[in-house]
Amino acid sequence: MPASTRVVVDVMLKPEILDPQGQAIANALPTLGFSSIASVRQGKRFEVELAGEATEEALDEVRRAAATLLANPVIEDYEVRVEVAK
Amino acid sequence: MPASTRVVVDVMLKPEILDPQGQAIANALPTLGFSSIASVRQGKRFEVELAGEATEEALDEVRRAAATLLANPVIEDYEVRVEVAK
Repeated sequence: MPASTRVVVDVMLKPEILDPQGQAIANALPTLGFSSIASVRQGKRFEVELAGEATEEALDEVRRAAATLLANPVIEDYEVRVEVAK
Repeated sequence: MPASTRVVVDVMLKPEILDPQGQAIANALPTLGFSSIASVRQGKRFEVELAGEATEEALDEVRRAAATLLANPVIEDYEVRVEVAK
């Protein structure tokens, strides 16, 4: 059993919230010769290493941290998932 | 067949590069009552909508955009993957 487990928290702006960073990237792409990309949205990815195993209690703690610290649930959606070791 | 395909680009600092943002979060967690998290690294997640289908050519373009525009390969690793529709 591994000493630590990686949990990934993806945080993205809600679809109805404007994303000027992503829009700036999408607008720059055609100028740079990239024509097959229609739109870009930029968010955050957190890689969280647990001190112990991925128990339901530990995952609940990550979910609480995601909702209170890593994401702003008013404008952002987040997803917490255990990453399978490669 | 869907009109557009979503490709996700995850960008993370290379493991040997210091991540002060992630460290600040990890240091704040015990104070806030989260004890089962050992470390945090923060990166970026881009959700790219293709104009057409996820052909090998379109994916190559996203990989080129990731390497030149979305990530800095000197200090960051990136991963490009097609997201399966939910």
